[in-house]
Amino acid sequence: MAAKFRPYPGTRDFYPAEMEFRNWMFQTQREVCERYGYGEYQAPVLESTDLYRAKSSEEIVNEQLYTFTDRGDREVSIRPEMTPTLARMAVDRPASCLLPLRWFSIANFMRYERPGRGRLREFYQLNVDLLGAKGPGADAEILMIAVDLMRAYGASDDMFVVRISDRRLLDLWIGIDDREKLRRIGRLIDKKEKITEEAFAEELAKECEDPELESRVRSFLAMDNASLDRDPDEIVAHLKLEGQKADDLLAVLNHLIAVRLLLRKSGHEAAVLFDPAIVRGFDYYTGLVFEIYDTNPENRRAIFGGGRYDRLLGQFGKEDIPAVGFGMGDVTLEHFLEGHGLESSRTVSHRAFLTLMNNDLLGETLKLASELRSEGVHIEASLEATKKFGKQFELAEKKGFRYVLILGEDEAKAGTVIIKDLQTGSQHAETRHTVADYLKKR
Amino acid sequence: MAAKFRPYPGTRDFYPAEMEFRNWMFQTQREVCERYGYGEYQAPVLESTDLYRAKSSEEIVNEQLYTFTDRGDREVSIRPEMTPTLARMAVDRPASCLLPLRWFSIANFMRYERPGRGRLREFYQLNVDLLGAKGPGADAEILMIAVDLMRAYGASDDMFVVRISDRRLLDLWIGIDDREKLRRIGRLIDKKEKITEEAFAEELAKECEDPELESRVRSFLAMDNASLDRDPDEIVAHLKLEGQKADDLLAVLNHLIAVRLLLRKSGHEAAVLFDPAIVRGFDYYTGLVFEIYDTNPENRRAIFGGGRYDRLLGQFGKEDIPAVGFGMGDVTLEHFLEGHGLESSRTVSHRAFLTLMNNDLLGETLKLASELRSEGVHIEASLEATKKFGKQFELAEKKGFRYVLILGEDEAKAGTVIIKDLQTGSQHAETRHTVADYLKKR
Repeated sequence: MAAKFRPYPGTRDFYPAEMEFRNWMFQTQREVCERYGYGEYQAPVLESTDLYRAKSSEEIVNEQLYTFTDRGDREVSIRPEMTPTLARMAVDRPASCLLPLRWFSIANFMRYERPGRGRLREFYQLNVDLLGAKGPGADAEILMIAVDLMRAYGASDDMFVVRISDRRLLDLWIGIDDREKLRRIGRLIDKKEKITEEAFAEELAKECEDPELESRVRSFLAMDNASLDRDPDEIVAHLKLEGQKADDLLAVLNHLIAVRLLLRKSGHEAAVLFDPAIVRGFDYYTGLVFEIYDTNPENRRAIFGGGRYDRLLGQFGKEDIPAVGFGMGDVTLEHFLEGHGLESSRTVSHRAFLTLMNNDLLGETLKLASELRSEGVHIEASLEATKKFGKQFELAEKKGFRYVLILGEDEAKAGTVIIKDLQTGSQHAETRHTVADYLKKR
Repeated sequence: MAAKFRPYPGTRDFYPAEMEFRNWMFQTQREVCERYGYGEYQAPVLESTDLYRAKSSEEIVNEQLYTFTDRGDREVSIRPEMTPTLARMAVDRPASCLLPLRWFSIANFMRYERPGRGRLREFYQLNVDLLGAKGPGADAEILMIAVDLMRAYGASDDMFVVRISDRRLLDLWIGIDDREKLRRIGRLIDKKEKITEEAFAEELAKECEDPELESRVRSFLAMDNASLDRDPDEIVAHLKLEGQKADDLLAVLNHLIAVRLLLRKSGHEAAVLFDPAIVRGFDYYTGLVFEIYDTNPENRRAIFGGGRYDRLLGQFGKEDIPAVGFGMGDVTLEHFLEGHGLESSRTVSHRAFLTLMNNDLLGETLKLASELRSEGVHIEASLEATKKFGKQFELAEKKGFRYVLILGEDEAKAGTVIIKDLQTGSQHAETRHTVADYLKKR
């Protein structure tokens, strides 16, 4: 059959060079999360469609889900996100889920995105969640993990900024009771960075109608990182709030101040800024919200984000469980890492190409390969002699090897190996038991 | 919603304790394959159904495939096996696939298995393939990887046996032209281990009809590991074969002898035995076939197996590519590892539970946590003080921690930390910068 098959539209094949990069991305995530005592979990790629009907957004369920009926007449879907599965697992085996629960997973997801939006239909995402813990300590821990992840990739604190806010801040600041209007104002603020200032002003005036309301939104957006250094009582007094609303706003401001203080104390504050414009589009957030941005002006999209969602898990089980976490997609992360040249911070394994001078030497060559492998060197060995010995060097070069090993009859007898450096063209003999050390020192 | 969702039938959730085991299984596979210069690849979980129609077995396509029509009217399937994807990728980007090509992948697959067969609908499999290489060296390399995998899990050579044969051996030995009968005899031999001797004898007599043919099958099965120590010319002469058939049988025997010699030379022979009864059920094998068995009499199923399939890849691309490889499923491997208690050979990470004495100490506690994490210790930190301090010790114990760290005001001032060993009940103060070392030495 000569027909050429391609990967399914919107998905990617990962050839070894790409996979090595991904393994580095994922292994780094694993290491950072484990440092914080987070346990990794995984689940089937297929779930009952009802699980998503329960709570995923209508857009996901009606337009994006890969859903079908199985041979046993069950409605099933390829997972489009992890949170419903997390909730299902936490409810299903409570004995394995002592609170506070610290969990993470690295998994693939599928969504039927419309072509041309620059989105993929299969993507990978790290999900990190802390369940059953409230208070500034829990919010601070999630932010510490986010910062440590970026640092673990070799990013310095000036390459990224973590913008934090609290979802309740806008409602309390604006102080109106029309929840639909509040939600629309929130969405408008969420897209502020993506539209021109004029367009934002126009839409805001249209939405607010009342100039007093508009000026409240403007004063809300005028807050910046330094606002948290002010006395929160003064801020509340300045807004002329009283009673419960004043107490609530004060509590939110004090919470943010406490979170920032913990980040300072633990050495994670440098890249964190308070920014009231961070609201995040999803309705399920109930407190902290944050987004991590690339400081590279060429790449203005958020790399990833998250927040607190204390009322989501109750919809899957019997009761609400406080929860805070984030999801980190592979595509935006990859753009960040490539934009800053951070992929070169990977440690490269020691590797060499082992030639075969003639077929009679194959046994001795495989023996040498086994010795070197057991010493931790990655050896790709020639398994058949070529008519022209030089062909093997050409292949090694094409495959990107720098070091080529040669074992002739003389070397086999003398217990030596010739190491040729394809980059400099030089070669020298090394005693057999020092070859691994020699390669490891390069 | 109080409805309880369960994982899809025949699939598994992996909670952190199970996931830690799997990560060890998969990471070990990765390390062994990389030592041999194999590159890891990965592909989308969804493929065009036509890819499987092209070559997967009828059972897979008609009965086991998770297949559906997507929102763009494409017929798609969740992958049931890796080889079609491997072939697709190798044909699609030849520049990334210089021959000989050494590739492996660790992926999940779905098949709609009938319930009650003890099979799962979602399973994981390591696939290891060497493309574009013929000769005993290539076959030996694949067997070396299989042996090294078992050893990397801590298995000694007496815990498993690698039974090898050559798919052509039966045809040449029996010497009849009826290919359908040959195939049926092959399948009968394949299931010999699973039925009684009497049942086998009965089925064999019925299949062969001719006593002369039956005696040929018996003499074929009478071969054992020692047969390869005999002069292959004698074996061929004894069978009274002549001409091309004699030459072909001689070549196959010499090939097996050469493979075994290479395994001996490279230190991989101990667990490898020639066994003519290994034929493997799949029609696509063209040469070497092998299966790895547990020597534990409680577990008689093959753990995994593979072989040479020189004519399969041509069906996806323009020309045949010699290929040898194997697939190692997670379920049978897990049974083997548990049966021999090998999971305890995992290296366990250094971890401790960090208590919080009062909420004023949270900043200092998170600072200590950050210090210890940067030294490689996994720290789960309390983020809120409990009314009774002892509650935190109870939680640490339930979560399986042995070491609990205490940082009170006095310790914070003195630069010390109290380490309590929950196993022995003893505790002592350690200077702050030696805590990580202390924990690492346990």
